[in-house]
Amino acid sequence: MRTIGIDLGGTNASAVVLDDERTIGHAKRKTPADGGRDDVVAMLAKVARDALDDADLDATETVAVGVGTPGIVVGSTVGNASNVPGFDERFDLGAALEEALELPIRLVNDVTAAAVGEHRLGGGVGVDDLLAVFVGTGVGGGLVLRGEPYEGAHGGAGEFGHLVIRPGGAACPGGRRGGGAAYAGGRAMEQAAERARVAGTPTVLFEVMEEKGKQRATSGVFKTALERGDELVADLIDDAIEALGAGIASAVNLLDLDLVVIGGGLADKLGAQFLDRVDAAARPHLFRSPPAVEFVAATLGDDGGAVGAALLAREVA
Amino acid sequence: MRTIGIDLGGTNASAVVLDDERTIGHAKRKTPADGGRDDVVAMLAKVARDALDDADLDATETVAVGVGTPGIVVGSTVGNASNVPGFDERFDLGAALEEALELPIRLVNDVTAAAVGEHRLGGGVGVDDLLAVFVGTGVGGGLVLRGEPYEGAHGGAGEFGHLVIRPGGAACPGGRRGGGAAYAGGRAMEQAAERARVAGTPTVLFEVMEEKGKQRATSGVFKTALERGDELVADLIDDAIEALGAGIASAVNLLDLDLVVIGGGLADKLGAQFLDRVDAAARPHLFRSPPAVEFVAATLGDDGGAVGAALLAREVA
Repeated sequence: MRTIGIDLGGTNASAVVLDDERTIGHAKRKTPADGGRDDVVAMLAKVARDALDDADLDATETVAVGVGTPGIVVGSTVGNASNVPGFDERFDLGAALEEALELPIRLVNDVTAAAVGEHRLGGGVGVDDLLAVFVGTGVGGGLVLRGEPYEGAHGGAGEFGHLVIRPGGAACPGGRRGGGAAYAGGRAMEQAAERARVAGTPTVLFEVMEEKGKQRATSGVFKTALERGDELVADLIDDAIEALGAGIASAVNLLDLDLVVIGGGLADKLGAQFLDRVDAAARPHLFRSPPAVEFVAATLGDDGGAVGAALLAREVA
Repeated sequence: MRTIGIDLGGTNASAVVLDDERTIGHAKRKTPADGGRDDVVAMLAKVARDALDDADLDATETVAVGVGTPGIVVGSTVGNASNVPGFDERFDLGAALEEALELPIRLVNDVTAAAVGEHRLGGGVGVDDLLAVFVGTGVGGGLVLRGEPYEGAHGGAGEFGHLVIRPGGAACPGGRRGGGAAYAGGRAMEQAAERARVAGTPTVLFEVMEEKGKQRATSGVFKTALERGDELVADLIDDAIEALGAGIASAVNLLDLDLVVIGGGLADKLGAQFLDRVDAAARPHLFRSPPAVEFVAATLGDDGGAVGAALLAREVA
């Protein structure tokens, strides 16, 4: 069966054409930085057609489209996504895209899509119950339970970045205090580094950003600063690992999971050592002894979300 | 359909006969304090027959038996339950009881059984995704997801008492640090009160225990101490509520639940005020705004586990 999968992000959207288990077409476009939801819908239709072109197919040769989107998905609608123009307020993205592409649409949260990709074709093949954690600009979590994506009662499951780790602790980007994302996401780590710099703590982080011509502390910027022996960055990453370990252990204890898949920009850049350290940070908090859960790296990289969305599209074909 | 449900606890076992949605027979027996697993199996068979007698039925007039047991259930086996003689090591309780009662057996974790009881006939009727939290001697959690009990990859789901709330914080009974049970269970609260007394903090808790002729600080003992204005007990309950609120919020954020059902001895004794305070303690940590989750009291009381087990028995009838 041949389906299209799209992964919509705040910066880029990527699309794949999936033929059974093989990716036969690829495309990427910039997400409009301003404008409205119509501009985003038009871009999504274009990136899908680009991927079809790349596969030398037209739309009639595929059966459905899956779309992974930030925010909270309910049926064919999405809302609560502040990083995509016009996606803050709930609207019927499924209907709009179905009209543009003349194919049935399956909408899903982007992180849940990536979890499904890893579950069926990536690091999580063969298990029924997993948590996929993606550590990049923020921290996202997606659940597969009993072999199926678990989207929650109102489409908001997997908010792993908001597990309460330290009541009254550091502030999260969202304004609550003590959530895991407060420690573990790139944006929060950059903000913490900025506060430390203002307070006089030496760090090369902002020099590295400038050298690399980046506006933001990307995963690559953190990696380089770490390689140069930056103690502040090493401390921030230690804190991130501690928070991730505690949060993951809570999820594993609550759900008795088979597997934790770790991916995302920062995890990919820091490699096996990052995975091993998160694993080690989680162990002391695990209830089961010996622990019945394993930790593995995500294997689909940036394609995971689009591949997972393409797999879920089969449900509506 | 007519089934038997048994709820095995460390102190007592209770049994019901369930006829559709009606409980038509009741029985209760002491769990053997010593001896081995054979004594426990014999007692379980007896309490089931007592409930049949109470309903004026014999075993051939029912179709199956559900058993909620402490520990980790895998298929028809149970293990890891240190509070029942012989249940520490894994064994085939289902087969042993099937031989004794000549009826098919459905084994399930006791707290999951209670969650199912509340979901189908108690405070959680009509929702698909709920967490039931029982606060008594310890803290137990049971999950119903997509309308079905969620037992986890290895039968150990719902370990709500082991959500990591404060890394490096107070010790849990199980030896890990910072789990919710460290603050919220009656046994842990009694231990904390004992430490405080040794350190010179005034408290009437132990006098109340003696007055009531109790060996342990039961839920009733805590309630009376609180009514007498005991500040230490008030502080311990404040801490328990804070820990429960944070832990529940983490579960709600991760799973996007419809409903949280609160029950157990301490919750029942302290009444609506306890429920309202746990609800209020969870709110600041919830990711969804406005929160999409509701908090309600468990309504089946001590019968919840046996009723849930009887309902699950229908699966094997």
